Amino acid sequence: MQRTELIDELRRIVGPRGVVHNRDALMTYDADGCVMDTGEPHVVVLPTSAEQVSGVVRLAARSRVPIVPRGAGTGLSGGATAMSGGIVISTARMDKVLQIDTKNGRVLCEPGVINWELSQTLKPYGYQFAPDPSSQKACTVGGNIANNSGGPHCLKYGITASHVLGVQLVLPSGEVIWTGEGSPHAPGYDLTGVITGSEGTIGLVTAAWLKLTRLPEALRVVLALFPDIAGASNSVSQVIAGGFLPAALEIMDRLAIRAVNDMYQLGLPESAGAALLIECDGVEDGLDELLEDVITICRRNGAIEVRPARTLAEQNQVWAARKNAFGAMGRLAPTYYLADTVVPRTRLPYTMEMVGKISLEYNLPIANVFHAGDGNLHPIILFDRRDRSQNQRALEAATSVMHVSIEQGGVISGEHGIGVEKQQYMTLLFNTDDLAAMAGLHQSFDPLDLFNPGKIFPRGRGCGELAALRRSAVSWAELKGSVTG
Amino acid sequence: MQRTELIDELRRIVGPRGVVHNRDALMTYDADGCVMDTGEPHVVVLPTSAEQVSGVVRLAARSRVPIVPRGAGTGLSGGATAMSGGIVISTARMDKVLQIDTKNGRVLCEPGVINWELSQTLKPYGYQFAPDPSSQKACTVGGNIANNSGGPHCLKYGITASHVLGVQLVLPSGEVIWTGEGSPHAPGYDLTGVITGSEGTIGLVTAAWLKLTRLPEALRVVLALFPDIAGASNSVSQVIAGGFLPAALEIMDRLAIRAVNDMYQLGLPESAGAALLIECDGVEDGLDELLEDVITICRRNGAIEVRPARTLAEQNQVWAARKNAFGAMGRLAPTYYLADTVVPRTRLPYTMEMVGKISLEYNLPIANVFHAGDGNLHPIILFDRRDRSQNQRALEAATSVMHVSIEQGGVISGEHGIGVEKQQYMTLLFNTDDLAAMAGLHQSFDPLDLFNPGKIFPRGRGCGELAALRRSAVSWAELKGSVTG
Repeated sequence: MQRTELIDELRRIVGPRGVVHNRDALMTYDADGCVMDTGEPHVVVLPTSAEQVSGVVRLAARSRVPIVPRGAGTGLSGGATAMSGGIVISTARMDKVLQIDTKNGRVLCEPGVINWELSQTLKPYGYQFAPDPSSQKACTVGGNIANNSGGPHCLKYGITASHVLGVQLVLPSGEVIWTGEGSPHAPGYDLTGVITGSEGTIGLVTAAWLKLTRLPEALRVVLALFPDIAGASNSVSQVIAGGFLPAALEIMDRLAIRAVNDMYQLGLPESAGAALLIECDGVEDGLDELLEDVITICRRNGAIEVRPARTLAEQNQVWAARKNAFGAMGRLAPTYYLADTVVPRTRLPYTMEMVGKISLEYNLPIANVFHAGDGNLHPIILFDRRDRSQNQRALEAATSVMHVSIEQGGVISGEHGIGVEKQQYMTLLFNTDDLAAMAGLHQSFDPLDLFNPGKIFPRGRGCGELAALRRSAVSWAELKGSVTG
Repeated sequence: MQRTELIDELRRIVGPRGVVHNRDALMTYDADGCVMDTGEPHVVVLPTSAEQVSGVVRLAARSRVPIVPRGAGTGLSGGATAMSGGIVISTARMDKVLQIDTKNGRVLCEPGVINWELSQTLKPYGYQFAPDPSSQKACTVGGNIANNSGGPHCLKYGITASHVLGVQLVLPSGEVIWTGEGSPHAPGYDLTGVITGSEGTIGLVTAAWLKLTRLPEALRVVLALFPDIAGASNSVSQVIAGGFLPAALEIMDRLAIRAVNDMYQLGLPESAGAALLIECDGVEDGLDELLEDVITICRRNGAIEVRPARTLAEQNQVWAARKNAFGAMGRLAPTYYLADTVVPRTRLPYTMEMVGKISLEYNLPIANVFHAGDGNLHPIILFDRRDRSQNQRALEAATSVMHVSIEQGGVISGEHGIGVEKQQYMTLLFNTDDLAAMAGLHQSFDPLDLFNPGKIFPRGRGCGELAALRRSAVSWAELKGSVTG
């Protein structure tokens, strides 16, 4: 099919205003937050209903054109990038909160609803949507589901998978199914679980029942300062091992503190080598005692100062510094590469020490701002993209961080997905049997490999590459012929 | 392959003591708690390692003999029953807790570990495994994973799916994979989610990393008595809508109270038409206030009496009455049929009223003991199995309960699985597209349909039957040939 024909057909399905095909406009869709990998789609559509999405998908299947689902494009792994062209389906116009059902503790909304706006909408009812990625003022709940996103408060409340009760899903065949409608007790296979974190490779969510989380009655925020990151990491490990469950435990290291200190007028001392942001929430009674226990552990691990954020304004200031720390990195270097790995909490101090060594080895500054309570590292490798050598060293340093994390029993992605950025690392974590099981699952949903193709699975690498994995899955499936055939 | 040959081969894999083939011994494996559907296996094996399980599975695949995984056989839906013979793989000898890792909040154990014993083992460390089915003194964690089991405390702590961090799994191909090792942030598809609740149809779990839940600092148990079930149901609905989260909210109706009253010397008054068991847990501070708020709601809904269980002995007595209520039904009738459905909490009062009408319509007493906080009904239909008419009416009454639950936006199984007992009801809840998506997923793992065959999917019914569903999934998959040739 010619591109112009495709555009005409798409217009018939979503209306003329729902199709973007102008080259300048398309350029804004050529990457997500990860600018290392880019790719321009042939066309972008902005449907307004599941029926329209289904129509687009059926057309794409008939025409063998790839589909790339896209939320706000705030991912950092290239997951929403059309690497080999095709149709980008943007959920931007599916942005309505459809039903707030407080009595059953759930809310029904479309995938393009912005995470932050959902929580603002729920606030007057006394509820929130708990997962809160740093990008929450832009990212969408559909993107959160696709990437199984985390956020600072996921330490206490769990990542996105714990908050999705059921979704309406357009399958690669164009069929529209519901995977559940809010009961955690749904029988049959857990299709909600399959879709969550599948990065747009097995379907497109067109509506979701999400879990409501009660806003806490009260909360406390303090910043504990340490001479070095080891003291902060050890404190986090001991807080959790002690059975305490703060709402958030976030660490910033010396470089990160330097970046945000001026910008947010935090007035932190030069001597601070690490800051541990502690938030405790719950019922008012007992909250100060919990906080006191956590602070005691910090002091035992060498905290030099503990600063409470006493007013709402102070709390917002501290959180803004943490959530916008990535942006503040622009003060330190023209480009950064965000590594995103997870290690068991007990391995945090050692892993952070190794990250320091990697920084020295590759002669690039690395700042650290991370979800310590979850063991979710975010080493921010600072470099100048225009310098070829720095570019190369940044990528090698990131690979070293992956290797160290896996050696410590960790995984290669915390919350930003695999996308295209990390697919070559999948074989570090999974063997061929593991990947073949995933490829078989993928094939059962998307046999034409048209949904976000070229993502997640390693490419062109023999054993880990999708076609080979599928052959491995299929060779087993072919046995079936000898039984029922 | 002859049965004797098969037995010889199995002995070589699991050792002579790991094979049960004596006819008398096999009879004890002919059913699970659901005695309505029985089926005797050809042979039972009791492996002690993933390698042995893999060996058995490979042999079964070569010989085209079905495999039926089995925990303690306490399910009530026939899920562990070998309906068409084959090899039952019992996990009874894989009963070790392998590693308690409190620092990372997880425990590694084999599938045959008994739920209750796991929590007893964790107690000295200050932890528990939170899902607590009524059968917890017998049921295994492998069975809990297969059925995604619930229990009274799942209201606050979530059902089994919320507590499985990753599993070692023997696939129908005999391959052994790990789906995760404890990090909630595992990248790739959520195979842990796929296996949880899949009732042994896509693999056999040989080890699992489970989440540790801290034992609460303190708890309170009270029994609120109401003249009728409506008052109790409305209280539950209002407690949750008010944002309160007790650890458990369990209702017993008049008939159930009658059954347990004498047995456990509860001394409840004749006037009590419903008892609401409330447990609140957490830190000591604020707990009495939470309880008081809940009790106020009960009184507003007509509670005639509120009895606190002041001592540990009194608490254990109340819980024993609740957990053994099914057993106590023997005092009322020779047989009972346990229905197990879920409705949105707000639909509880109406649904309970309808259950009362169904009891009158079919002229059979129905007792109710259920997880009210979750909206998980357990109408216990009392009848005499030897009476053909009662038998028939019991089944029809159960079907009516299903229909009413689905009409109210509910589902057909809370925690006992679909098994063989409810497969014919799957089409009430799912349409052909939904079921075809599940069948496709199943096929990608178990193309020979050898793992617990004849379960979950409707049988011999045209549109909902597995072979037809697979054809529907396959016809789409065959398109692939035209692309990749």
